[in-house]
Amino acid sequence: MDIDLADLRAHPSSDVFEEVLAEVADDVRELVGVGEVADYIPALARVPADRFGMAVADLHGDLHTVGEADRPFSIQSISKVFSLILATQRFEGDLWDRVGREPSGDPFNSLVQLEHECGVPRNPFINAGAIVIADVLSSCLADPLGELVALVSELAGAEIPIDGEVARSEASTGYRNRSLANLMKAFGNIQGEPDDVLDIYFAQCALTMSARQLATALRFLANDGVDPASGHRVLDVEKARRINALMLTCGTYDAAGEFAFRVGIPCKSGVGGGIVGVIPHHLTACAWSPALDRTGNSVAGRAAIEQLVERTGLSVF
Amino acid sequence: MDIDLADLRAHPSSDVFEEVLAEVADDVRELVGVGEVADYIPALARVPADRFGMAVADLHGDLHTVGEADRPFSIQSISKVFSLILATQRFEGDLWDRVGREPSGDPFNSLVQLEHECGVPRNPFINAGAIVIADVLSSCLADPLGELVALVSELAGAEIPIDGEVARSEASTGYRNRSLANLMKAFGNIQGEPDDVLDIYFAQCALTMSARQLATALRFLANDGVDPASGHRVLDVEKARRINALMLTCGTYDAAGEFAFRVGIPCKSGVGGGIVGVIPHHLTACAWSPALDRTGNSVAGRAAIEQLVERTGLSVF
Amino acid sequence: MDIDLADLRAHPSSDVFEEVLAEVADDVRELVGVGEVADYIPALARVPADRFGMAVADLHGDLHTVGEADRPFSIQSISKVFSLILATQRFEGDLWDRVGREPSGDPFNSLVQLEHECGVPRNPFINAGAIVIADVLSSCLADPLGELVALVSELAGAEIPIDGEVARSEASTGYRNRSLANLMKAFGNIQGEPDDVLDIYFAQCALTMSARQLATALRFLANDGVDPASGHRVLDVEKARRINALMLTCGTYDAAGEFAFRVGIPCKSGVGGGIVGVIPHHLTACAWSPALDRTGNSVAGRAAIEQLVERTGLSVF
Amino acid sequence: MDIDLADLRAHPSSDVFEEVLAEVADDVRELVGVGEVADYIPALARVPADRFGMAVADLHGDLHTVGEADRPFSIQSISKVFSLILATQRFEGDLWDRVGREPSGDPFNSLVQLEHECGVPRNPFINAGAIVIADVLSSCLADPLGELVALVSELAGAEIPIDGEVARSEASTGYRNRSLANLMKAFGNIQGEPDDVLDIYFAQCALTMSARQLATALRFLANDGVDPASGHRVLDVEKARRINALMLTCGTYDAAGEFAFRVGIPCKSGVGGGIVGVIPHHLTACAWSPALDRTGNSVAGRAAIEQLVERTGLSVF
Repeated sequence: MDIDLADLRAHPSSDVFEEVLAEVADDVRELVGVGEVADYIPALARVPADRFGMAVADLHGDLHTVGEADRPFSIQSISKVFSLILATQRFEGDLWDRVGREPSGDPFNSLVQLEHECGVPRNPFINAGAIVIADVLSSCLADPLGELVALVSELAGAEIPIDGEVARSEASTGYRNRSLANLMKAFGNIQGEPDDVLDIYFAQCALTMSARQLATALRFLANDGVDPASGHRVLDVEKARRINALMLTCGTYDAAGEFAFRVGIPCKSGVGGGIVGVIPHHLTACAWSPALDRTGNSVAGRAAIEQLVERTGLSVF
Repeated sequence: MDIDLADLRAHPSSDVFEEVLAEVADDVRELVGVGEVADYIPALARVPADRFGMAVADLHGDLHTVGEADRPFSIQSISKVFSLILATQRFEGDLWDRVGREPSGDPFNSLVQLEHECGVPRNPFINAGAIVIADVLSSCLADPLGELVALVSELAGAEIPIDGEVARSEASTGYRNRSLANLMKAFGNIQGEPDDVLDIYFAQCALTMSARQLATALRFLANDGVDPASGHRVLDVEKARRINALMLTCGTYDAAGEFAFRVGIPCKSGVGGGIVGVIPHHLTACAWSPALDRTGNSVAGRAAIEQLVERTGLSVF
Repeated sequence: MDIDLADLRAHPSSDVFEEVLAEVADDVRELVGVGEVADYIPALARVPADRFGMAVADLHGDLHTVGEADRPFSIQSISKVFSLILATQRFEGDLWDRVGREPSGDPFNSLVQLEHECGVPRNPFINAGAIVIADVLSSCLADPLGELVALVSELAGAEIPIDGEVARSEASTGYRNRSLANLMKAFGNIQGEPDDVLDIYFAQCALTMSARQLATALRFLANDGVDPASGHRVLDVEKARRINALMLTCGTYDAAGEFAFRVGIPCKSGVGGGIVGVIPHHLTACAWSPALDRTGNSVAGRAAIEQLVERTGLSVF
Repeated sequence: MDIDLADLRAHPSSDVFEEVLAEVADDVRELVGVGEVADYIPALARVPADRFGMAVADLHGDLHTVGEADRPFSIQSISKVFSLILATQRFEGDLWDRVGREPSGDPFNSLVQLEHECGVPRNPFINAGAIVIADVLSSCLADPLGELVALVSELAGAEIPIDGEVARSEASTGYRNRSLANLMKAFGNIQGEPDDVLDIYFAQCALTMSARQLATALRFLANDGVDPASGHRVLDVEKARRINALMLTCGTYDAAGEFAFRVGIPCKSGVGGGIVGVIPHHLTACAWSPALDRTGNSVAGRAAIEQLVERTGLSVF
């Protein structure tokens, strides 16, 4: 297919995206199932490796899909974007006194930097940072988890459930996260009791959404903070852009620099196999395929986002 | 002044930029001189702190300036962009086997990560990475320094000199860089003799250019690799974008995440007080003011780039 | 007083030690109260800073004291010697697969090395190492805490109590230890549930003993493993010597190298202000004074041990 | 053979040591040649692996030997003891402001701690520390290397040569040491030019001595600072003991804790295969066998020192 890039940039049309998505699905077919499905808890381990789905939300608010775009999966770390959005909306203090905005430069759950930097996590997308955000939400909201679910559901236009089995499994195996939370508590950067804060964190990781729902819920990030379908402003321009910036520099664990270099757009991934990408002023995409590379990112999902960028010629750079 | 952002995005006109630059210069006036001029070598220490100049190169190839935009200064680490461009053009092996693409997560001359990661620097914009690039150039070019000067001069449209005093001072005080080069040699990631490679590195840091020349030389980065004035392709699209990506994630020392978050565009700074910013598909800017903050970035220069982004509403996000 | 060192070495007599202790108490009088009493829990914080007591157990089994040698205090980290003795006696597997024997080279509760070295603590005298020993005791004894108290009581020749308030306070504020235990659990180096293992650890730290009781309980370490009073063998020669070696290289937190250099004998200190020193083939001493230096060692206690070594001319070197 | 330990302790006789050495040589026969001969420079690489020699100097000043105790070898890091002795004798400032006394807790040439601790090496027996000592000697002596050779020769009772080939090879391959010296210069902890200081350091490592000469030269360390043969005081009591303390805690690279634990006496090893051990108030021993374990210590040499301790029952603990 011959895409007129200049035209696509000016007027991204539905038809073009349908074709592009079909081609992307073709491009990555051989990668689906390559890698390892996360197996640290049973509910993730039993997801078949050979699944793939993808959705693109354009700036008209239209959704385009390919494959199993309606199959719900565990969003895991993608939930960190939603909790950050909620904290950005609702917390009145300075969030950035308690969590940094720098890439972590170390594997995503490292305690080294956290200790060296006195309990202030590098950014809100590493586990320690997301635990601080959960503590922030606890301190300013009466029902932090309820409000988070409400926000996600409203953005996605659907009732979004928490998978209780996943949440319980996370809680019963999450010794490293428990170590992080207690270390930050020792440094005074957690206000609640570590176990209570972790309950929120483990529950948010167990949110279950489809690629379509994720692309829908985060399409406002491609549109300067305004939901393109409803016209509703979710965040002001600057805050929306800054979440994109954080996704670009810190969104894909230890592979963030590599992602920025090769893919060139803000992304956030989760070990459930989902990955969301934002091309500001053009689209929000979500690809899902459960098998992961050694950095914890979906092999086929990552390739699909990369091919979408390649085939459309869109990039933030 | 009332800027029509939509119009500016579509048709950045010369007149608009003149006005914006005047306003930006006003915005940062009180910051000029705030901070500390680099004083580790005499030639830098004696530059007056109260200078400021700025230039913007638009996509028509036109230059717009304010203040001392024609005053030459020591470009220091901004030279790392040029050496990377030259290596990208000329080295036929895989550059990225020898230097990473991840943010460093540590102060810009840290040996810790370098040792921990067996002599492979995190990225080409930290000192260790730029020393590896200098070694790469030594190994594939007969006259690496001569070719670097030729490239920079061609891009800038002017004969660009190396300040011999600065180069000699860097060489005679550069113990930490000498430590880095010898450590990488011990790990086998430097092919030449450390002292020879450092001679190139110290000389490139002593390149002397004005804000106008720097904005001119790097305007192709805002135009998918093509010089907008001459139509000459400097790098192919993908490579040009990737240099922008590296500038965004790694271009401003340990403040890169903060820069991406607050400023939102690819930048590269030097301790001579210069800072270059690229807004892809719109412009390349260079601001200069010698006084630095504690991260080694120009206080007024950084603010000027930030105000330019704020006043034009342009951002990669 | 004129001490005949050669004579003392050959025949350490009671009378000499009484005099030496009186002089040592004089030597350190001005240091008693200098420093800060540990204040992280109320029960420690309210101990008056101006206390001092010291006891020496000689190889005849005789005890010599000065000052408040019979006042009980919280032995804190000195308990790590007892739990190691019990594990050495009773654990049949290889203890040293699970904990190292190297000085830590970092502050005593650092997570950095622990993470870097995959959950295996450097030695049994840093907190992480003592938590592993508590887990080892849990796995091989039906009533680990009961048996520890029984051992300590038998060695001290007195019923040794656990201060319940101290144990509860430790448990309710011990976030950093909780972080350590959960990290080691994540690495698979804790078999029990972290909270259960920590209950033992926090309780052992709350053992309450006097200087006299501590000097008595550990006098076998100066006598190749045999209690000099009863003739009862507590540990075989080699194991007793190895505990002394560990005390010399790792017994005083981050000051171990400094202690070995200046004091030159095996020591183990606790933040309750106690410090035990062993001069093999001569004596075991315990000094107590609650005010601590910034490394967590008693200021006057350390000086008293140092003066005892100086005045007797005894040293392992 | 039946050794009367109590008697040996009281009156170490020549005959006993001859027999013990013969037995030790038997004990370690199967280990001679096990491990890897240092091969980073040709002069070391060509030493046959299957050599073994050992010497014991007793407190009468008598020497007892077995095997190739008169064959000279490259003493390498054992030279750090001699340079420290010379600095202790001659430097009038406070040596310990410039180098620490703590075990390093990291491989022997690590830059991590050195950077973290601002250019002050952990102790004088890691490479960085010995380079600082070489700089100290440069600053207070007109001919530091000449005086070092003179001291060693006097202590050994023989003209001790420097192997020029070894020194040149060390200099031409010593990139990591060059990195260390330049880093410390950057931190201001080296006064001379790094290359000049390294010339001294590389030369001292090339001192060539036999086991007999090393045991002779360091016998004063077992005798409270006095050469037992000549009655000449080399160091005062306290300084001699402190060198023993440093050897115990820091003398065998990263295996120091393990050595203290298993062997229990002060030792200093070198990658030439030599290892010196001191049993205060009893003897100084030197074993040599070129094949090394992965910590850089002689396999058979270490075992020989261990067996000597085992068979005599002597230990500092």
